[in-house]
Amino acid sequence: MGVDLKKFFEPKSVVVIGASAVPHKPGNDVIRNIVANGYAGKLYLVNPKGGEIMGMEVERSVKDLPEGIDLAIIILPASANPQAVRECAARGIKAIVLAAGGFSEVDEKGEELQEALIKAIRETGVRVIGPNTSGHTSTPHNFTSSFFPLGKIPRGNISYIAQTGNFATHTMRYIITGENFGVARVVGFGNKVDVDETEVLEYYADDPETKAIFIYLESFKRPKRFLEIAREVTRKKPIVLLKGGSTLEGARAAVAHTAAMAAEDRLIDGALRQAGIVRVYKYSHLFLAAKALACMPLPKGNRVSFSAPSGAMLVVMTDLCRQFWGLEVPEVEETTRRRLQEISPPYIRMRNPVDIWPSAYDHGIEFAYREGMEAVLQDPNIDAVVPILMITDDTGVPSLDFIVELAAKYPEKPIYVTFSAEKKHMEGAKAFLEPKGVPTFPLIEEPFEVLSILTRCRKAMNGL
Amino acid sequence: MGVDLKKFFEPKSVVVIGASAVPHKPGNDVIRNIVANGYAGKLYLVNPKGGEIMGMEVERSVKDLPEGIDLAIIILPASANPQAVRECAARGIKAIVLAAGGFSEVDEKGEELQEALIKAIRETGVRVIGPNTSGHTSTPHNFTSSFFPLGKIPRGNISYIAQTGNFATHTMRYIITGENFGVARVVGFGNKVDVDETEVLEYYADDPETKAIFIYLESFKRPKRFLEIAREVTRKKPIVLLKGGSTLEGARAAVAHTAAMAAEDRLIDGALRQAGIVRVYKYSHLFLAAKALACMPLPKGNRVSFSAPSGAMLVVMTDLCRQFWGLEVPEVEETTRRRLQEISPPYIRMRNPVDIWPSAYDHGIEFAYREGMEAVLQDPNIDAVVPILMITDDTGVPSLDFIVELAAKYPEKPIYVTFSAEKKHMEGAKAFLEPKGVPTFPLIEEPFEVLSILTRCRKAMNGL
Repeated sequence: MGVDLKKFFEPKSVVVIGASAVPHKPGNDVIRNIVANGYAGKLYLVNPKGGEIMGMEVERSVKDLPEGIDLAIIILPASANPQAVRECAARGIKAIVLAAGGFSEVDEKGEELQEALIKAIRETGVRVIGPNTSGHTSTPHNFTSSFFPLGKIPRGNISYIAQTGNFATHTMRYIITGENFGVARVVGFGNKVDVDETEVLEYYADDPETKAIFIYLESFKRPKRFLEIAREVTRKKPIVLLKGGSTLEGARAAVAHTAAMAAEDRLIDGALRQAGIVRVYKYSHLFLAAKALACMPLPKGNRVSFSAPSGAMLVVMTDLCRQFWGLEVPEVEETTRRRLQEISPPYIRMRNPVDIWPSAYDHGIEFAYREGMEAVLQDPNIDAVVPILMITDDTGVPSLDFIVELAAKYPEKPIYVTFSAEKKHMEGAKAFLEPKGVPTFPLIEEPFEVLSILTRCRKAMNGL
Repeated sequence: MGVDLKKFFEPKSVVVIGASAVPHKPGNDVIRNIVANGYAGKLYLVNPKGGEIMGMEVERSVKDLPEGIDLAIIILPASANPQAVRECAARGIKAIVLAAGGFSEVDEKGEELQEALIKAIRETGVRVIGPNTSGHTSTPHNFTSSFFPLGKIPRGNISYIAQTGNFATHTMRYIITGENFGVARVVGFGNKVDVDETEVLEYYADDPETKAIFIYLESFKRPKRFLEIAREVTRKKPIVLLKGGSTLEGARAAVAHTAAMAAEDRLIDGALRQAGIVRVYKYSHLFLAAKALACMPLPKGNRVSFSAPSGAMLVVMTDLCRQFWGLEVPEVEETTRRRLQEISPPYIRMRNPVDIWPSAYDHGIEFAYREGMEAVLQDPNIDAVVPILMITDDTGVPSLDFIVELAAKYPEKPIYVTFSAEKKHMEGAKAFLEPKGVPTFPLIEEPFEVLSILTRCRKAMNGL
């Protein structure tokens, strides 16, 4: 099976069937995406009209293609898909992405079409992602089958499995334009008639490009096997999963049976936990936790230190860590405490969490945060550090190089930055720090929520 | 008592004692703030050096001031405060803001000083905010006593009580630069030796400029009276409160007695709920919920409709509404359902929540969201509407005027906007919509979390 998926993620040659010369058509956007991402393999195009598209020759028929192209992307009306699959198989193509919608998700006629499609797949033995998929992406091979105009997709170490069209399209555009981390592999499943999450998980498990796996799923095709594989994977790589309520239909039908629903959900919960999969509930966490993990190590444990320029933030974040996030805000070593005291005026008794305001007032923002952060970073009782940075025109805008330097000096401890600051300086810090590998979060609760998730990933890795 | 606070919030004349000609000194920044906010009353300055500051004459002594100035802002070293209070009282000044720190919050000597200060207050009968306060603000009177360089503070209908210096300084700078709503009154208490939250709450209760009250408190000075007043206020105006864990010291001491702590917290919880105060736990909610309430009505109930361009978002948000947020996502009227069906292709069965993608694909973003939103806005089963706007270069950037128009047409139903979009278009929509009274939220969970809070405010108002 691994061999089949290799053809999807590492194709040496690709053909677009239904290639279009018309801008903004899916059959055109897919070509632009492939070119924009710098795909280095051989690219073939098929359209009955022939001619040229973007300077590339177009074949009139699948029959005109050479034998054994690795991957076909079929962008044809639903009704043409079963036949196209058979034609591809006849040319020795073993991996196919089917973009068209109009199958079981629409009506009875579509269901019949989907049956015909499944028959074609079974009889030919080809492997298929889709139909009704927004495509898949493999940045280490500079490749995407997406027909949504994504442009160049930044390469990174996070891989996604998403049972939703939006994730690989609009959410990915948000990630590309709004966050500073890259992806390794992304699969949008669509109707999932053939290749399923379990196979993709297997591929990601052994994929050296994948550091962590983020999943949105509404249903498990082979739950037992999926959990078996996950149990092994989560010892090596975090799996974070958002489980959609199967279907709205189902959820609605079950409203009268909320007890049964809750019981079922508890079952799922237990099974996921046993497999070491960390369940999240917020859609946003699929990219916020990914961002944190993309550039920082997993925290070794749940013991956090944070520096805040406000008593209220010290108190509120400590409360939240304890009550809701499963995070400890422990006492630090006496040597650490002494160092924190040295950089602060005598009237304040320093400890963890770090009240950074008096030191910042006396010695400046940069000195206070740098020394305060280093004190707790070197402390064996601390697993992760969150500076709540104060940056306004009034306090001055410090160089943030010191945070990048501290991240490099303490590579085993994640640093997540958040703010008590003016908007423009938050944006400036994000633009400076994130490309250098330090994630930032606009709201002060976010780094802690993410830490809470990643602490559970670490526990899973430790078999706890 | 109300009369005394009127002198704080509506001062006809103000004196800065400790006025400074040196830029960036608190005694200078406070003058700049007062000028920047367009204070129209009479402003006096006192400094033993005399001369002029920013073109204004400076008196050498409090004794040189005319009788009966409404409010004094004293920015002098802690040790000079008790005497300055007595001097002010002698000139008929009845309301004083004390900026200096260095009292009970630092050491024993500071504690003694604070005792001397309290004695001066008791013996003279003046009313005092502070010491160690970051000041107070009253935009309807174009006034602030803050020595933190805030600049012009936007006027609005939200009033704050904050037992923390950061809120009225850096957090306020975040609100001013990062959000598009204004405030009416803000009080930072500092050491709270005299004027307390109960009195301020009383003032806000009858204040026509205050639509809603947001509070951060670590301790209640007169809890019984506070709750009594709150019980009446919350029938007319929402009170949202974030309770800090009294002190870190206290919280730490209580670690060994977590059961006792939890029990105490449950007591507080019950008392707040009985008084109709809505408790929140996130610091960010102090401004996110405020933003929503500043320009939109309270929802009449907890029944939400949302439009999403993604099946995953429909499913996940519905799950979260039900499981965590106390929000219903109800069925709509048959006429509403038919209208949603009319604007959508026949293959999809429309309902609430609204799957907007097929309509947007067929008819364009603007048509789909406009018609989809109006259908549910006019439905009697729906109390609030959240469009999850899809805006990318690909889908095109619609004019968002229609959302402003719908907000005006259905003034009793809050509309909160969130996104599945590119970053720049999210920023563009925020900059366009918020000044026109429609709040936006970058992460899709945020409008629902805010709705959850404000639904509880409505319940409190209804005595439920």
